[in-house]
Order: sequence, then C-alpha cells, then structure tokens
Amino acid sequence: MNGLQKLLRPRSVAVVGASADPAKTSGRPVAYLQKHGFQGRIYPVNPKASEIAGLRCYPDVRALPEAPDVAIVLLSAQHTQQAVRDLADIGTGAAIVLASGYSETGEEGARRQRELRDAAGSMRILGPNTIGLVNLTDRITLSASGALELDHLHSGAVGLVSQSGGILGALLSRAAARGIGLSKLISTSNEVDLDLADFVDALADDPATRVIALYVESIRNPKTFRAAARKAAAAGKPIVAFKIGRSASGAQAAASHTGALAGADAMYDALFDDVGIIRAQTFADLLDIPAALASERKLGGQRVAVLTSTGGAGTLVADSLGVAGFELPAPDAATGAALRTLQTGDHAALDRNPIDVTLAGLQPDLLRNAIRIVLESDQYDALVVVVGSSGVAQPELMANALRDSLALSSKPLMAFISPHAPRAAEVLSHYGIPAFPAPESIGAALSAMWRVQGGKKRAVPAHVPSKATEPISCMERGSLDEAQAKALFVRFGIPGVREITVTSESQATSAAGTLGPRVVLKLLSSKISHKSDVGGVAVNVAPEDIADRLRQMTQDVQRHTGQPPQAFLVQEMVTGAAEVIVGLHHDPLGSAVLLGMGGVVAELVRDTTLLLLPEDGAALTEDAVLAALQRLKTWPLLDGYRGRPKADVPALIQAVLAFAGMATALQAQLIEAEINPLFVKPLGQGVCAADGVVVLQD
Amino acid sequence: MNGLQKLLRPRSVAVVGASADPAKTSGRPVAYLQKHGFQGRIYPVNPKASEIAGLRCYPDVRALPEAPDVAIVLLSAQHTQQAVRDLADIGTGAAIVLASGYSETGEEGARRQRELRDAAGSMRILGPNTIGLVNLTDRITLSASGALELDHLHSGAVGLVSQSGGILGALLSRAAARGIGLSKLISTSNEVDLDLADFVDALADDPATRVIALYVESIRNPKTFRAAARKAAAAGKPIVAFKIGRSASGAQAAASHTGALAGADAMYDALFDDVGIIRAQTFADLLDIPAALASERKLGGQRVAVLTSTGGAGTLVADSLGVAGFELPAPDAATGAALRTLQTGDHAALDRNPIDVTLAGLQPDLLRNAIRIVLESDQYDALVVVVGSSGVAQPELMANALRDSLALSSKPLMAFISPHAPRAAEVLSHYGIPAFPAPESIGAALSAMWRVQGGKKRAVPAHVPSKATEPISCMERGSLDEAQAKALFVRFGIPGVREITVTSESQATSAAGTLGPRVVLKLLSSKISHKSDVGGVAVNVAPEDIADRLRQMTQDVQRHTGQPPQAFLVQEMVTGAAEVIVGLHHDPLGSAVLLGMGGVVAELVRDTTLLLLPEDGAALTEDAVLAALQRLKTWPLLDGYRGRPKADVPALIQAVLAFAGMATALQAQLIEAEINPLFVKPLGQGVCAADGVVVLQD
Repeated sequence: MNGLQKLLRPRSVAVVGASADPAKTSGRPVAYLQKHGFQGRIYPVNPKASEIAGLRCYPDVRALPEAPDVAIVLLSAQHTQQAVRDLADIGTGAAIVLASGYSETGEEGARRQRELRDAAGSMRILGPNTIGLVNLTDRITLSASGALELDHLHSGAVGLVSQSGGILGALLSRAAARGIGLSKLISTSNEVDLDLADFVDALADDPATRVIALYVESIRNPKTFRAAARKAAAAGKPIVAFKIGRSASGAQAAASHTGALAGADAMYDALFDDVGIIRAQTFADLLDIPAALASERKLGGQRVAVLTSTGGAGTLVADSLGVAGFELPAPDAATGAALRTLQTGDHAALDRNPIDVTLAGLQPDLLRNAIRIVLESDQYDALVVVVGSSGVAQPELMANALRDSLALSSKPLMAFISPHAPRAAEVLSHYGIPAFPAPESIGAALSAMWRVQGGKKRAVPAHVPSKATEPISCMERGSLDEAQAKALFVRFGIPGVREITVTSESQATSAAGTLGPRVVLKLLSSKISHKSDVGGVAVNVAPEDIADRLRQMTQDVQRHTGQPPQAFLVQEMVTGAAEVIVGLHHDPLGSAVLLGMGGVVAELVRDTTLLLLPEDGAALTEDAVLAALQRLKTWPLLDGYRGRPKADVPALIQAVLAFAGMATALQAQLIEAEINPLFVKPLGQGVCAADGVVVLQD
Repeated sequence: MNGLQKLLRPRSVAVVGASADPAKTSGRPVAYLQKHGFQGRIYPVNPKASEIAGLRCYPDVRALPEAPDVAIVLLSAQHTQQAVRDLADIGTGAAIVLASGYSETGEEGARRQRELRDAAGSMRILGPNTIGLVNLTDRITLSASGALELDHLHSGAVGLVSQSGGILGALLSRAAARGIGLSKLISTSNEVDLDLADFVDALADDPATRVIALYVESIRNPKTFRAAARKAAAAGKPIVAFKIGRSASGAQAAASHTGALAGADAMYDALFDDVGIIRAQTFADLLDIPAALASERKLGGQRVAVLTSTGGAGTLVADSLGVAGFELPAPDAATGAALRTLQTGDHAALDRNPIDVTLAGLQPDLLRNAIRIVLESDQYDALVVVVGSSGVAQPELMANALRDSLALSSKPLMAFISPHAPRAAEVLSHYGIPAFPAPESIGAALSAMWRVQGGKKRAVPAHVPSKATEPISCMERGSLDEAQAKALFVRFGIPGVREITVTSESQATSAAGTLGPRVVLKLLSSKISHKSDVGGVAVNVAPEDIADRLRQMTQDVQRHTGQPPQAFLVQEMVTGAAEVIVGLHHDPLGSAVLLGMGGVVAELVRDTTLLLLPEDGAALTEDAVLAALQRLKTWPLLDGYRGRPKADVPALIQAVLAFAGMATALQAQLIEAEINPLFVKPLGQGVCAADGVVVLQD
C-alpha cells in the first residue's frame, strides 16, 4: 500500500500529542477510534502519560513498536515539524497535521508550511490546519471533529472531500440527521501535499464510493484536478461540487481562510463543465444531489408523476419541478382507470397530476397500489411521493410502503417531506429513497440525474494529450496595433476584413475607392485601445467624403490625446453579419476562450461563456465549441432566429479553434488577445475579424 | 364584533359533526380546542352522542343554547349546505367549512359552491375545503390539522395566510420546530367568501401581528387585495409572499387544486412590486424572511460582520452575503484593537471579516465581548454569528450570550447554524434571534430587511382614487391598421413618426420627396399584423427607388397572401434613437403596461417588465414609470451608457403615462395595444411611435 492508501485504510494509527482527557480536542481522536470500532492498533504518544484509554502510551515517536500506517499529529505548529520529521524517519505512511498557523496566516506561516513539507520528505501529509479524515465504510475515524460525538455513523455511497474542516463537521452532522450515508469524508484544508485531486482520484478507485461530493474554496492544481475528475467520470462516478467565492467578499474570505488565490468564479463553471462536474447551487444541494445520484435509479425521461394525499403540497412540488424543466402529464386512460379501481368516492383527483390519493398516508395498501400503478406506467419516468402529516407520527408506515416498491422498477422514487418530520426523512434516506424537506431540492436532484444519465449527458472524452507543441516565437513585442493584431490572427487561420493602412487623405481616398461603396475609417495606433472614445472611428463613409472625415478625425484625436494620429485604417463595410466577441482569459485555473455576442445589449446582459482550454496543449473539439456557443442566450441569432439567414457557424467554430490554437502555440507570450467583433456572415460565406487587440510579452 | 372579528377571536365555538373519537379527523377540533387551552364555550353537535370529551353534545344546530361566534362544520359536502343554512338562521358569526367537493372538482362542484354561498346569507364563511384557522395569540384552534398534535404552540408576531390547508399544516409544523412564533394561521382555500384580502386587512389591524406571510396560489380579487396590502404597508407591517404557478405545470396544478384561474406569473411580480410585497424565492424563505423581519431590528446599511469560531462556515456565510449584495469590511483599527484585547495568541484572525474568534463557542464570555465590540462599532450595520459544533451539545451556551447582547444595540443580530443543531436554532429563534441552517437564507432575510427599512425602500402611496373616468367611446372597431393605430396614439398624446398614406407609385415618390432623404415603405393593412413576414417592409429607401420598391412589394405581398395590397405607408427614417416596446397586458390580476427595450437581443433575453395599472382608474406616477424602466437590464442604453447621448427619458415617461391613460380611458374596449418600436430620441428631442397594433372591441 502507498501512503495515500494507508491513510484511507490504516491498520495502525499513532496519535501524537494524545490527551487522556476525552473532553479535550487532543483527547478526541483516541476516544473516537475506540467508540466507532476501529479494528487496528492504536498508539497514543505523550511523554507525560503511560496509559491513555486503556492503551499503552509511548513517550515519543521513536519509541513506537512499528512504523504506523497513519499518525494524527495534535501538537501546536511549533512542535509539529519535529514530530513530522521523526514520523517520516521511522517510515510512517502518512501524517494528519491538525495544527493551524500556516499559510492561512500570511507570509511567516507560508514559510513554516514549506518547512513542514520539507520535513515530511516522502511521507504523505494531510493538512495542515485539517480536521482529518473519516472512513465510514470501515469505521475508521482519523479526526478530532466534534461531529464524531454521534453514536452511529451511517455508511453509504457518497464520498465527500472538503477544503474546510469546519464544513466537514457540518456536513457529517447534517448527513447523519438526514440518513444520508457517506463512504469517506476528508478535510484537505491547506493542502501542503495531498489535495482535492488526490482524493478525487482515490475515490474514483474506491469500491464503496458511487458519487463524489466536493466543498471547494480554491482548486490549487487544476491540471491534476481535471485528470482526476476525468478518471471519476470514466469510472461512472458523478461529481457534485459546491464552490464558494462567488462574490468578491466570499473570494476574499476564502483566500484568507486557506491562503490560496482562487480563480474567477466563471472559470470554475468552465472547468466544471469541461469535466462534467455538476455545480450545486445551494449548500443544501451538496448533500441532496449526491443522495439522489447515489440511489442509482435510472431516469429515462423528464415526465414525473407526483403522488400526494395533500393537494397543496403536491402542487408545491409540481410547481418546483415545472420550474426545473420537468413535465407532469396527467395519467392516460389506462393509468387513470387503474388508479380509480383503488378508491371509491368522487373527491380523489386521480385523473390529474399531482395524483391526489386522499388519506393514502393512513392507508399504506392503497399507497402501495398507487405507487405500483404509476411505476408500471410507461408514461412516467420518475415518481415523487409527498409525505404528509402522517409522516410525523408514523414515519415507518409510508417509508415501508415506499421501500417495498423499490423492487418494482428502476425509475427514480423520491419523497417530499411536507411537515417537519425529520424521522421520516431519515428512515426514507436510509432505505435508499432520497427524501427532501425543500421542494426546490427535488428539481435540483432530478435535473442532476437527468444531466448524468439522460438527454443532457455530455461525453467527457478521455484526455489524450497531443504531442507537446513547441512554443512559437513571435516577432512582435508589447501592444500591437489593430493591423498587426489582425495579421497575427491571419497567421493562425482567422481571416480579417479587407483593409488598407493609410497615412494621408489621398491614400485614404484611393483605398476607399478600392474597398467601397462605403467604408470604415479608423485611427491606427498601438497606444490607444478605445479608439471610439477619442473620436477615432467613422462608419458608413462614402469615398468622396473620406478626405474630409480623415481631417476631422485628425483634429478630434489630437484634441483628445494631445497627439496627432500617424496612421489610419480604411476597411470594407461588412453588413448583414452577426457580431461575435472572441477573447482570451488567463486565470489561476487555466486559460479559457471567452465567447459572447457582440453589441451593447449583449454586453449589458453579460451574455458570455468561457471555454476552458485543454491541459497539455491538446486541441479543443468542434463539439465543445458548438456546445459553448449554444449556451449563449443569444445563440438563436446565429441559428436562423425569426427568418434571419443562418450564420456560418462552421466557419465560426474553425475561427474559435484557430484562436485557441494561437493561445496554445504562443502560451505565456500571449498576454491579451481579443477579436471584437468577429463578423459571422451567412452560412457558406465565412467569418472575418473586424477589430482586434493583442498584447505580447515585452 | 362583526363576523370576521368573531372568527378570529370567538368566545363560543360550535363543532358540527364532532366525533367522540379524537383519532378521527372529526374528533380533532374539540380535542385540540381543549388541549391548547381555549377559554370559551365549546358546543359539540352530533345527533348520535350526548356527550363528547366531557362536554354536552347537541343533536342539531337549532338546539344550541346560543348563536355561536364560530361554527366548525365537519360534515360531508352533501350535508354541509343545510347545516350552514341553519347556522346562518340562528345568527352564527362565521362558519368554517372543511368539506371538499366544491369548485376544485369542476362545474358541478362550482354550482354546489354557489349554493353554499347563498345558504350562508350574511354569515361569513371560511372555506370550503379549508383546514381552518388557528389563533396562536389567544390559543384558539379552529382546525382539524394534524399539525396541532404538537404539545406547545409558540405564539409570536408572524401572521400567516395560506390558500392551501395542507401547506398551513406544514408551515405550522416547520415554524414550531424552528422556534418561529406565529400570531394567526388561516387557510382560505376555495374562498367562497372570506379570502386572502380579508385576512391581510384583518392582520393589518391585529396588534399581535407585525409581519404577514402569504402562501399564494391565485389572487381572486386583486382590487381588494391591493387595498389590503396598502393598508398593511401603511400600518408598517411588511408582507412576504410565496407564490406558486411559476411554471406551466405548477399553474395547472394550482388551478386544479383550488379551482381558480391564475394570472401570468410576471403579473404577480408587478402586483407585488406595486404594493411593496416581498416575494419569497424559496419555500423556506416564506418562514425565514418573516422571522427576520419580526425581530424588529433596524438595518441602517449594508455592511455586515460575521463572527465565527469555525473559519469554513464563516467563509460560507460571507460568500452568501456577498452574492446577496452585502459588504463585509475588515475591522478598522479601533475595532481590531478592541478585538485583539480579547484573545492572546497569533492564530485568531481578528483583523479580518469573517472575524474568527477561535474556540469562542466554548468561551461565552469571550463571545459576549466580541459581539459587544462589533455591535458598538460604527462600521457595521448587522452581525451574523456562526454557531458551530458546540451548538449541538450545549445550545444554551451560545444562545444565552446572543440573547444578552440584544439589548446592546438595535442592529440586526442573526445566527447561522453550521451543524445539524435544531435545538440551537429553536432556542435562538425563541429569543428573537433569527437562526438559519441555510446560508442562503441569511442573505435573503437581510435583503428583505434592507428593502423594507433601508435604501431600496419604496414608498407605497396611500391609494387615492381619482374621480371615476368616464369610458371614452372610440369610433373604430376591430383591428386597426398601422395608420389608424398611430392616430389613436396621437389622440392620447403619443406622437408618431411623420408618415403619408399612399396608394400609387406616384404618390409614394412624392411622399418620399417630402419625407426623405431616406424613407421607410410599409404595407398598410388591418389584416396582416406581421408585415415583414410577407415582404411588406423596406427600410432605407431613396426617393428615386421608391416606385420600383413599391412594385416589388406589391408582388411579394400578393405572392404571400394571395391579395394585392391596397395601400402603403411612407415614413421618415429615424436614426440615432433608442427603441422601446410599450404594450398592454390584460390579465385576471388586472391590466399592466409592458415595457422593454426593442431589438432582437433584448427579446431573446426577455428583458421586459410589467407595470400594473392602478385600480379605479387612478393615474400612474412618473416615479413608478421611471422605477420600472430602471428595472430593465438594458436601462443604461437610455441613460448615456458608454458615451451615448442620454435618451429623452422624460418624454418616454410622458408617453408611457399617455399609453396608460389610453388603456384606462378605453377600458375593456381596448383589447390589444402595442407600440413597437417607440423611438426615444436624444434628450430634449422627444419620442415617436414608429409602428403600432391596436385591436378594439367589435
């Protein structure tokens, strides 16, 4: 076993700095190991005690009878480094370092953290500043989290990795209350060595884990993370991530908390999308969605039946499902007839959806039959049962009926818990029936299942690194002017508008004659990036007017900048084309192509998307570019909306691939690049860059 | 006391159809009245029993010793009508009718419901199909809801009206578990008589109610509802509403459930906005936001401090607050220095926000001092305290520290409960400290407080009905053509573009010469509303080309429609103006003006807003129109975005007021009206309608 494997499933655990007092934080790990039934050997280490919790206590690490698989180090930062060095020396598999006072505190702490890494040598480290790790599958608790005061840990199929120790405790506690079973629970915190990616990779291999949940503050190593996420996808294990730092305040707080610089939040969307990770929109979803995915039911379509004995709650669920994009068709003739055999009286609304089986909460046989009829009906892909007030007093009554129905079908079967009935939710979850107190969670969970299993599934291609691209050197340096920028684009395969650089009125008149009947006149300068702000753009100019217009522009630019312009561009007027923005975004998470519709309205509504570039210089795929374009709300403008001609999307895709190819080839040399706008002409007529910005390394 | 007052606070209650078996639904009301301590007289009515629960039982309504203030009618629909007639005859104040089988079941049920109303005469009715009413202030339970099995009902300041009985039970149960105190709880359901508006009006007068929460499926009487909401606003009582029917599925389910036709969901936004109602976005918010508002703390700004002993949860809260638009400034020098006197050691992050007071959960004195310092600091407007794992084992420890801090300041003080610690949440809420298990709820609650108390406050003007406007008759009938439509707009004060109606090539050439240098040529027809679909629009036409263009258009239109066009419009070309859509929307909730930016991008992103017209023909205000325009994401286009000229917003506002005036004057005669586009020229240059649709009653 390697160090990481030993960490996840140790046979022997040393607890360095263990206290004999289980009420102290340093007394907890030994107490919890015993309480939750660890079957291996426990070695408390403390020079001041000879026995702790009935176990022989060792004065120091070097006195241990064997090299332990794992050591939990409970010492202060000051004493931790020596202990880690000693543990590494005797051949310990991995050390869990709880001390804080490292990179989260600033420069001095960051230095201390580097020394800790050096002291560990080849021994693996979890932390520092971690609350540890819990292997619920094998009942091994390597943690001081107070959440382990729980008497029973319900093991299950959700593996959870958190970059915060406190959140790990909160999620353990919340999952236990809800009856959601976890496999492994790991707090990575400062990640001096083992990080999110290592545990995603390990959970992809872990037979007990079917779904991976991540609480993310900052991904420090996007490359290995993406590889690990691809591995999990290939193993059929969906990943659900809740990522904070969505606001400036949150990003700042996260940076302070773990000492890592996070990338732009939109880049996380791009990264998650790239590797098929589902982003949880609320904190509750981080448990609710994995619980639903772990049920391993198959969602074959988007038609959902809601079965209720309380009309109001059924309506509430139906509305939430509708908002999430699901359909709720009324029972067809056969299903309706079968339902009507169950109940006499004219009040039950059995021919509608929600299907209202009056009093079914108190009549489990009626409920069982209704569930059977709906699950057997071809017209529904999933069933949500509403648990009403009977769920408070008699949680088992309905839970048993639902549990017994699981074998009838592999369709998703879920419950909405209308009143406060925590016991009903717990029992149902325990039986493998996701049970939600929030109606919004049902829509979120089914949407995630649909994305993982159904129509919105996107293949996550196994990553095939292309042959390493040699960085291409570029003659130019610094800010390019518009003509140079477009020349660079052309070199990488992106055509530009027809244009001629001019320096005089006569040259301009001649150029306009060639490019007319109407042209655009622009200031050409590598120093001024917002040409229109200084009066440096004129559109729809007739050749006979261009000399006057150039003179006017010269005056305007000089007035705004104090400098007379040296050169101008005369460009053809392109009309009848859609306008797209293609830009490059560098970020700690990686580099991405920004795509958006041109024009001021699209800008105001922020209708843009980011497309992460593959690691290792591999090429983007045409499918990935098309999917990104289709994410834009304004996509219909390219797709023949309201009788417009369809735009040349194939040419646009090639241009985006060429732009990405340029970014990959020039690598860090390319600091900034944007085409705004790229004209996309009608299908078959291609694209051309009408303006561009490029900044290269000096 | 009138019937409604008697219903809310009866001194005597008859229970018609009471059962001696408290396990039956019909046995519950008497049992609950006794259990929860009703101090008045209870009269069970049942011909088959002589005594129920120690009370004398009466054979029928006419045998009662007095006319009761309230009767709860537990009979089936079949027997309810006679009982209601008898109750009305003896002078009962109000009857609560639980039976279902009325308008929610279809036409036959609707007829039965009308008969029920007739039978009641002047006696008030709650229901039918209701679960009843609970007055928690006075411990009077007039309901069969199983949620009343609770031993203790925690009374408080939130009055709750639900159009669903099942949801009433769910909310009662959930509020009790969270320690959120309610004043009155009413299920209105089918609303044959008393409806949402009646109870909003009554709660506005109820001294025990400080906040009103509404679960809305459909507002049946928008006029009285708006008046009641204004009354609540004038009384300083905010209203929070959760409205279902946001999706087609949900709207259909709601219609089936209570038999009411709901208006468009966006109209509810407009109505809520008009009267200052806060819309809850999630079901949980329907309790969380009122709980926060009921705390009656004063939010003076948007700067929030987060105090935590667990870094991860503090960061989670900070991020949620950031997403909701709040600022989290770090402590200034004085506040930081004061905090640092509390704790030695270099690990506590006291100079940041979230302020991390290590282990404060176990050191209540430290926590008290830290809370005091933050509340006394001028730099914060509110404080959120994170309850960590100590909240599970020792909920009182932190709750008491928070409770004792309430007196120090009137700033909002809230708690985030990080682990599953329901007891901590309950105790805190009980003390008047809103406590949330979902981080998102804190942002929602503070945003609502800010809207009610702070910067986003909108005065809800007391409604002054203008003198009733006489409907103006209109000569035209049916669909108008574009020229007629614009003539109507002009009559109400909205200028149109300059245009001339022509029927021949020579007339067109002459008109173009007058209106040129470039003009627009359009088909003029009252039958064809999508002119461009049949080749009936040409822009940017030179006078010399118009004869050819007209001939071409004649052919195109004939090819598309089979009919030669009879007339055309020649219009001036307006350039350099913003384009706005102004439309009329009729809805069961009322009539509204739809405002949106013109153009296809704005259409794709659905950037429109609805502005509800006042009841009783009162005029819109300029402020209301401006606020609606500013709600558009594309508002900056009118406001000088990126160096554009500012558009003539004053003229636009006058045009919208004129359009609303037209709708008010023509009333039901005006079936459809839209100006698309209305050109808004640069400031000082006015607006003009470039195209229009009007449909009048035949």
